[in-house]
Amino acid sequence: MQAPVTLLTDFDDFYVASMRGVVASHGVPVIDIYHEVPPQDVRAGAFILRNVAPYFPEGTVHCVVVDPGVGTDRRSVVAEAGDQYLVGPDNGVLVPAARELAGDDARFYDAPYDEPESHTFHGRDVFAPQAVRVAVDGVGAVAGERVEPTRLDLGTPTFEGGEARATVVYVDRFGNAVTNLSGDAVLARTDYGGEVVIDGRRLPFERTYADVGRGEPLALVGSHGNLEVAAREASGADVLGLSSGDDLTVRPETKEG
Amino acid sequence: MQAPVTLLTDFDDFYVASMRGVVASHGVPVIDIYHEVPPQDVRAGAFILRNVAPYFPEGTVHCVVVDPGVGTDRRSVVAEAGDQYLVGPDNGVLVPAARELAGDDARFYDAPYDEPESHTFHGRDVFAPQAVRVAVDGVGAVAGERVEPTRLDLGTPTFEGGEARATVVYVDRFGNAVTNLSGDAVLARTDYGGEVVIDGRRLPFERTYADVGRGEPLALVGSHGNLEVAAREASGADVLGLSSGDDLTVRPETKEG
Amino acid sequence: MQAPVTLLTDFDDFYVASMRGVVASHGVPVIDIYHEVPPQDVRAGAFILRNVAPYFPEGTVHCVVVDPGVGTDRRSVVAEAGDQYLVGPDNGVLVPAARELAGDDARFYDAPYDEPESHTFHGRDVFAPQAVRVAVDGVGAVAGERVEPTRLDLGTPTFEGGEARATVVYVDRFGNAVTNLSGDAVLARTDYGGEVVIDGRRLPFERTYADVGRGEPLALVGSHGNLEVAAREASGADVLGLSSGDDLTVRPETKEG
Repeated sequence: MQAPVTLLTDFDDFYVASMRGVVASHGVPVIDIYHEVPPQDVRAGAFILRNVAPYFPEGTVHCVVVDPGVGTDRRSVVAEAGDQYLVGPDNGVLVPAARELAGDDARFYDAPYDEPESHTFHGRDVFAPQAVRVAVDGVGAVAGERVEPTRLDLGTPTFEGGEARATVVYVDRFGNAVTNLSGDAVLARTDYGGEVVIDGRRLPFERTYADVGRGEPLALVGSHGNLEVAAREASGADVLGLSSGDDLTVRPETKEG
Repeated sequence: MQAPVTLLTDFDDFYVASMRGVVASHGVPVIDIYHEVPPQDVRAGAFILRNVAPYFPEGTVHCVVVDPGVGTDRRSVVAEAGDQYLVGPDNGVLVPAARELAGDDARFYDAPYDEPESHTFHGRDVFAPQAVRVAVDGVGAVAGERVEPTRLDLGTPTFEGGEARATVVYVDRFGNAVTNLSGDAVLARTDYGGEVVIDGRRLPFERTYADVGRGEPLALVGSHGNLEVAAREASGADVLGLSSGDDLTVRPETKEG
Repeated sequence: MQAPVTLLTDFDDFYVASMRGVVASHGVPVIDIYHEVPPQDVRAGAFILRNVAPYFPEGTVHCVVVDPGVGTDRRSVVAEAGDQYLVGPDNGVLVPAARELAGDDARFYDAPYDEPESHTFHGRDVFAPQAVRVAVDGVGAVAGERVEPTRLDLGTPTFEGGEARATVVYVDRFGNAVTNLSGDAVLARTDYGGEVVIDGRRLPFERTYADVGRGEPLALVGSHGNLEVAAREASGADVLGLSSGDDLTVRPETKEG
């Protein structure tokens, strides 16, 4: 079966439809990941891609356009990561997903292109055509020399003295503040029914929203496997005053603690 | 041809993309129904599914995640309804669609699952995998024992003494307030060009928005076949102060009435 | 390979899902163009379709529902334009795309239909069924007599005395105000690094957003090939007080001018 090309952008407008057309023109199925990445937020794009890519089939080509550098001379890159491929601007947006899929075996290549007529729509004129060529003809059809990509690290905080310094990497549309702290690391220090002290505020640590009252904040391990600050049927980010990029101290405690 | 898996959720975020990946990983086409169901509004989800399911092909598997009980011990169910299948939490969200497709012949089965690592993302880890198994291997691959599903009735009001007691089951994004009252029942009592008195307010009953002036409210039979309160190029719900769940008295009258 | 049916509407709600079901029921792939056309804004729908249609493959059938006249006796039309097809209401929404694809060779035909039970959902009950018939059985299965479509002209302003009178045809969700003035016509009069005076206000004319400071307005040639008024990481329409439909004087000047 023909593996799909996926699209992940910050366009949030009809522009993405011409990318769908470019992909469909080669008989390749197109699947949308998300188009409402906060504008030009490379970190959020990287976080989203890292979280969903593992669920896609062998041969999938992820085409990502979160690209504050459009029109500058930043290069296009293609990554080979496990049995999947990633195409996008060389600003780090592909890196966490590539590492998630293949660890240190992920390989990045320059993906040279002729400057298109449009200086503002590289999604349609550069990245989508490159992605569909990878899907149809293989990565060799697009890849130039192997390169070291622009770094982007979502962070992997560790505990010292019972406390970790985490970062909010994403606030989703429900207001859940997703951190870069591994849920397993928290679970090694407390258990559901315990508590997590976040920036000095004591929150119940529960399996699920339903374990607290309506409107009440809690800490939980989100579907991404990371610690998340949420509130039942409300915005955890609002309740606790959190934004993307905020640093937090996190201290798990057993209930008796 | 391989029938599709459809997705209907209240996620309104990138999370749904990993469900698309799970489905695509088995070579099954995925079609989105809608992902902006008001959060945890089981009734709205049920209404939407009931309205769109009849237009899908034989063999379609509808995967629904509007699931306030995620993380509790509510079970997963699969329904066989006519030539289509429905998978989701046992909270009633599948019931009106199953009845619409197959009446009393709809059959519900328990769909046992191993608790996944993630306690908050059953859409990706439970329901999408079950739906795609039904699509590929048939309902028997997922169905346990036959069960009586949690009831959910969108209501079927009838007329007494020229008046019916209806409920607003859904306010769409244009502000059209859709009721559970059959349009045919209204048409049996008046005709286009007549009037409908709703909670004491007299509205023109017309074929279409274009039959009233801009901003003016009207009653009409919506595309779902139900009585709907709308306004031309405006929000009928705002003009009349209506919300989802409101009960209304409805009295059709001929113009002369 | 089976060419797709695309969907472009102003529905912005779940209603479009039943159109997807109608198309899928015939084994035809469905691709969404956009469903958040400003309600009943035929001009915006026409602009969007004209811009994306050229990127779709041979045999594509574009199904458009931006239809203020639903329920009136406006007819349905099907257009044959180059190697693509367009189906929708006869209000001009298809015309600029047809001209873009095939110039004067575009042909429009009446597409007669039996009035469906629903008077408000012609998208599902008239246009989607017609579109999928064209995709499966060819245009002859739907086309009646050849007709002259309702005109809609997005305008093609020209320069006189160094100045052109342009119109804002679309404000996108980033606040970029897209005009109907050809970018090439501007580039014939100045160059990147020059300036464009818009309604008396002097803006830098640059290749890309990154060429100005944050929040600063600029003029550029958008991905559609037209002159666009934008602002870096801000809304050009807000900064300059522009709305869809506004007329503007545009005077390109070289930097020395």
